[in-house]
Amino acid sequence: MNKILLEKNKILLPRGFKADSFSAGLKKNNAPDMAVIFSTVDSAVAGTFTTNKVRASCVSRNEKLIKQSDPMRCIIVNSGNANACTGIEGSKDNIRIAECVAKQLGIETDQVFTASTGVIGVELPMPEIEKAIKSFTLPDAPSIEGFERASRAILTTDLSEKKVTAKFTVQGKEVTITGMAKGSGMIHPNMATMLAFITTDLAISQSLLMSVLQETVEDTFNMISVDGDTSTNDMVLMMANGMAKNNPVQSSSDDFRQFKKALKQVCVYLAQSIAADGEGATKLLEAEVNGAKSVGDAKKIAKAVISSNLVKTAFFGMDPNWGRIIAAIGYSGANFNPDTVSIYFQGAPGYSCLMDHGTPHDYDRETVMGILKEKKIIITINLNDGNSSAVAWGCDLSYDYVKINAEYTT
Amino acid sequence: MNKILLEKNKILLPRGFKADSFSAGLKKNNAPDMAVIFSTVDSAVAGTFTTNKVRASCVSRNEKLIKQSDPMRCIIVNSGNANACTGIEGSKDNIRIAECVAKQLGIETDQVFTASTGVIGVELPMPEIEKAIKSFTLPDAPSIEGFERASRAILTTDLSEKKVTAKFTVQGKEVTITGMAKGSGMIHPNMATMLAFITTDLAISQSLLMSVLQETVEDTFNMISVDGDTSTNDMVLMMANGMAKNNPVQSSSDDFRQFKKALKQVCVYLAQSIAADGEGATKLLEAEVNGAKSVGDAKKIAKAVISSNLVKTAFFGMDPNWGRIIAAIGYSGANFNPDTVSIYFQGAPGYSCLMDHGTPHDYDRETVMGILKEKKIIITINLNDGNSSAVAWGCDLSYDYVKINAEYTT
Repeated sequence: MNKILLEKNKILLPRGFKADSFSAGLKKNNAPDMAVIFSTVDSAVAGTFTTNKVRASCVSRNEKLIKQSDPMRCIIVNSGNANACTGIEGSKDNIRIAECVAKQLGIETDQVFTASTGVIGVELPMPEIEKAIKSFTLPDAPSIEGFERASRAILTTDLSEKKVTAKFTVQGKEVTITGMAKGSGMIHPNMATMLAFITTDLAISQSLLMSVLQETVEDTFNMISVDGDTSTNDMVLMMANGMAKNNPVQSSSDDFRQFKKALKQVCVYLAQSIAADGEGATKLLEAEVNGAKSVGDAKKIAKAVISSNLVKTAFFGMDPNWGRIIAAIGYSGANFNPDTVSIYFQGAPGYSCLMDHGTPHDYDRETVMGILKEKKIIITINLNDGNSSAVAWGCDLSYDYVKINAEYTT
Repeated sequence: MNKILLEKNKILLPRGFKADSFSAGLKKNNAPDMAVIFSTVDSAVAGTFTTNKVRASCVSRNEKLIKQSDPMRCIIVNSGNANACTGIEGSKDNIRIAECVAKQLGIETDQVFTASTGVIGVELPMPEIEKAIKSFTLPDAPSIEGFERASRAILTTDLSEKKVTAKFTVQGKEVTITGMAKGSGMIHPNMATMLAFITTDLAISQSLLMSVLQETVEDTFNMISVDGDTSTNDMVLMMANGMAKNNPVQSSSDDFRQFKKALKQVCVYLAQSIAADGEGATKLLEAEVNGAKSVGDAKKIAKAVISSNLVKTAFFGMDPNWGRIIAAIGYSGANFNPDTVSIYFQGAPGYSCLMDHGTPHDYDRETVMGILKEKKIIITINLNDGNSSAVAWGCDLSYDYVKINAEYTT
């Protein structure tokens, strides 16, 4: 396989996609709060959606559109208002936005995905939104700046933009995958909505795109946790418009494996960026579990460790408190043998071994305290009980998490 | 049925039980860190234990003793050290404590339960502990003061003692149930170990005692959450020594129902006290779910709401942010209809309705802001979808939770 070039925090343009932002007055100071991602040609699409039983109408509508398997053209996103729990009116507003955008861009309503993030239970200011859409025009030519504006407009209280590009070749054709995401934090901090939008010029069937996206999301976006609260609005949408002009990639081909690998790199980077920028976070935590009986067991343990409030506060306090890690492993629900568990930091060099086969291990205190000051900490857990692995990402729990989420008043 | 007298934060003596404390130097300033609860006669026993796969050896040993169904005489508790993840040596130390206590009190080793709470992965200072046990003597006569000293010795960073007594009559005999508990907080704050010890002079078979304790714990101690972290050492132990001289109560008798009701009141009070005294807590949160399709659904929702970090921080910030409550209901995994959910505060007076059948409801802001200043807040959720109910208890998430758990260094 040829090399994959991963450009972190950068956008390069997949052929045939345009993006831009505008303002409908949902954010303070008239900051851009609407983003458009547009394909100049029909595009295969895939999506994964929140498992929350209470879902914004954009989530339900997009899921239905994807099930229809028709090609799509556009994603319209608003930040600052989740349009969730807003009843039938909210549902009508959601469709109305798609209608207005379709009319403005000369496409069909059913070719437009919608996405919202922000406060729950507040109606959208539709006159302002409709007026703003009617004055919006796409840039004449695709531009990196337009994509960058879009990637900023979807943010709320995120402190950093989350964008990435992977480049590789398929049948001698250059293929680009570009992703943008928003994470944990809102103007009205109701919950940590996670949105990710991924575009590529690869030619691939809708069904294959759907299966690869689902599998990749399981190992990336579904392996992060900021505070354990699943949003009503979470979604990952992907568009593949085929403008790279490769013959559509077939499953179990080298081309497909190459694409899958590149997509995973894109999603891992975005997922890590969301975890690192979790509300109030000072550190990115990565839990790497090896030697598990099954991938399911490894995933349960990795997620339990990075989700534990006690583990999270310990890392905020730079405390090598491995007792909290083994306790989280214990209540994870996974199948493992407590007597063979070993715990290390930063990929398991011997001096960082805190627990060895179920019993405490003398570690080099100075070195470990040095590790705890780093911005990214890998908690390496070897269950010594099988051959399966998993990785999850989270962040520490700080005073600022409480501040951000308590000091706002509805 | 006759009346049950519930004495909150008070100990009255069940016949034939003595208790006291002493110090083995595990806590700072030589504060008492060992507690003994002793029955002068053989006692039926029951217990429930942590579901954490990583368990202290005291947990495994007690569970084995209960399965043997032999009568027991004593519980020895130490605070300040969990004796968990301490390998074979820790297991030997645990048995050694039971042996020393048995010898000192003139009973058998297998008649002594052990319990530990504190830091994980540190060996017990056995010479000091053995020496302290050898100098301990039980008070000549049962005394309330001795029980009170025991209820203080089991605490760690708890800010308040948790003790309660229920009195009622069975076949004309006065019966007393007295419970003590410790909650969330340690000298070395590794996790929120929950211990509860309940004594009664009721005559009841071991098997019936076991079934009623299990059922009661499910609805009380298992319905609280401080931070979602399940300890390696959690346990509830109950001793019933029959000194009330009633004929052993039979299941499905009025006497049994009376006992069950009194035991539930004792456990609800202790469970609430643990939640209210959660690390850093400023408020007790009670989630009351009605109108559910099943008790299982109601329990899932009640626990999800009081466990949500976003809900907890909102109440710390006195923010009537019902969007976070409906989101937690949504991801609880329960079966319900989002379009019929109503949310209220303090038992559902109309002015406190925040959400009505799935849509936002205008509430009296001044009244609701007044409610949010109270020390106990009931979140009343009516699913309007069935006849089942459940209640769960938790606390808010404050700066002090982060401080307590981050500023300590192992």
